[in-house]
Amino acid sequence: MRGAVLHGPRDVRFEERDAPKIIEPTDAVIRLSATCICGSDLWPYRGINPTKEPMPMGHEYCGIVEEIGREVTSIKPGQFVIGSFFASDNTCPHCKAGYQTSCQHRQLVGGAQAPSLRVPLADGTLVATREVPSADLIPSMLAASDVLGTGWFAAEAANVKSGANVVVVGDGAVGLLAVLSSKQMGAERIIAMSRHEPRQKLAREFGATDIVTERGEAGVARIKELTRGVGADSVLECVGTSESMQQAISVTRPGGYLGYVGVPHGVQLDGQDLFFRHVHLHGGPAPVRRFLPKLIELISTRKIDPGKVFDLTLPLEKVAEGYRAMDERRAIKTLLRP
Amino acid sequence: MRGAVLHGPRDVRFEERDAPKIIEPTDAVIRLSATCICGSDLWPYRGINPTKEPMPMGHEYCGIVEEIGREVTSIKPGQFVIGSFFASDNTCPHCKAGYQTSCQHRQLVGGAQAPSLRVPLADGTLVATREVPSADLIPSMLAASDVLGTGWFAAEAANVKSGANVVVVGDGAVGLLAVLSSKQMGAERIIAMSRHEPRQKLAREFGATDIVTERGEAGVARIKELTRGVGADSVLECVGTSESMQQAISVTRPGGYLGYVGVPHGVQLDGQDLFFRHVHLHGGPAPVRRFLPKLIELISTRKIDPGKVFDLTLPLEKVAEGYRAMDERRAIKTLLRP
Repeated sequence: MRGAVLHGPRDVRFEERDAPKIIEPTDAVIRLSATCICGSDLWPYRGINPTKEPMPMGHEYCGIVEEIGREVTSIKPGQFVIGSFFASDNTCPHCKAGYQTSCQHRQLVGGAQAPSLRVPLADGTLVATREVPSADLIPSMLAASDVLGTGWFAAEAANVKSGANVVVVGDGAVGLLAVLSSKQMGAERIIAMSRHEPRQKLAREFGATDIVTERGEAGVARIKELTRGVGADSVLECVGTSESMQQAISVTRPGGYLGYVGVPHGVQLDGQDLFFRHVHLHGGPAPVRRFLPKLIELISTRKIDPGKVFDLTLPLEKVAEGYRAMDERRAIKTLLRP
Repeated sequence: MRGAVLHGPRDVRFEERDAPKIIEPTDAVIRLSATCICGSDLWPYRGINPTKEPMPMGHEYCGIVEEIGREVTSIKPGQFVIGSFFASDNTCPHCKAGYQTSCQHRQLVGGAQAPSLRVPLADGTLVATREVPSADLIPSMLAASDVLGTGWFAAEAANVKSGANVVVVGDGAVGLLAVLSSKQMGAERIIAMSRHEPRQKLAREFGATDIVTERGEAGVARIKELTRGVGADSVLECVGTSESMQQAISVTRPGGYLGYVGVPHGVQLDGQDLFFRHVHLHGGPAPVRRFLPKLIELISTRKIDPGKVFDLTLPLEKVAEGYRAMDERRAIKTLLRP
């Protein structure tokens, strides 16, 4: 089997790897219907997270169950399933509290940019659809695996309610789907911060009511203006840099909610500043598993179309080109067909 | 009129000051029934917050209205009132959202360690009791002005619910009243972190079910043990140092809530650490005004007795001794009688 392996900065190779197989009795092996490249894959791709040894890439996946371990009871071969980047048992206290990405037995799922994938803790991790979805729904189902679930969590963490004023910081796939999620949760005004025309367009399709192109102090001033000097009720931070986090904190109203899902890189928060701003802060690796049943339902009934974030589709063997396109911001998100 | 003025580290003088009078038409002047020394007064007293010029001290107060400005309509002379450390209009968007300490027109109230006090924005700031309370209720009414309201906000910010496991970090007056507040909100288990015997005793009287004397890693280990490895649902941080904040973060369960009300001094939070811990974080200067009607009701009907935190009562002119007693931890909190 051939799959994507990162060897160093900007060095992704499509090369021979061992085919996955059942190792633990709680495993499943699935044949992927589609996989993709994540914005967070760009951190190691760009060398910001160093690669110590060749690393099989990819953690977004959906597909058909091929084989299950002897202890797996909730899914069976032939079913179409979606999972997420952390495998979880879905029974421990953290899972029961809805934080499956903090599962006491969590395991990172990796190597999904390949034709097939081993998923540990299959019963707790995978959610089967009622039937095998039609081909046109596959991109949206794949989006549910990570970027949609993450955007949804951003909106949940930021307490988006009916009638809320929302700001979304970040116009990557997660940011765009955070717009979609906010819309689903009833936000009245959704301000997307973006300076990139095709992304602005998609943000509007997903429900953004306003686009702010300014950043830094000018961006804060513009949002204060749009919110009559008050700030936003809910701010969704979908980047993970110091600048984006500061932007997000600065536009949240006192008593407002900031949901952050961009993996923080070098972000230090000043305790006293946060204190006097009265911000509610919550975030982390999105517990996508919590949201999967709901998201699958919304997609199956065609109420949402998150698959639109894939603006480039390539055969899996062109994975390196997919990384280049995202790195150079020529593509929002690349779908790969095995 | 004579009142307390801080001239430099550990130099509090009881000296002549101008008597307060109505300046703005929205002011009130009240004659204090009691006042006190706050844990936060110790920051400048110890020189950690430098004193640039002689500073009238005190921001906790209750008493009888003597005079009101011509625009004040909601209180009248002769009434017993309680206010808090920030004056607020109680009508701006931040006030309406329940964050009166972020009022768009907020003003710090200062100089309350004196026989009388000018309170700006009296209509928005002061809450009158139905009748002048009996003398034995005065300490509890005074506690509502700051430390009780702050402990209550810690519990609110930490989302204390019926049946919750709670940890309180800090055994000062605020921490002790955070215990009382958690009990009122229905917490099942309340773990107070304290190594000071008289404070442990009061914590138990207020509802603590467990006392943890360990700190740092040993403290974290002990609390993990008490919560079956999971961590606490709600953690109330009532100190404001890096150590106490780290302690609080480390014992919160994934998806749990951390309410922090100790004014942060030199606290830097690591974004990535917070992210992977899945903590909900909220705090700030307590919007005591939001809680005053409820707290006054609980005190008037003798359901709670927060005045117990005053373990030293002195005549106002002995204010310097009150500071010394608190600085040396001989007293939890000093009540001053004008």
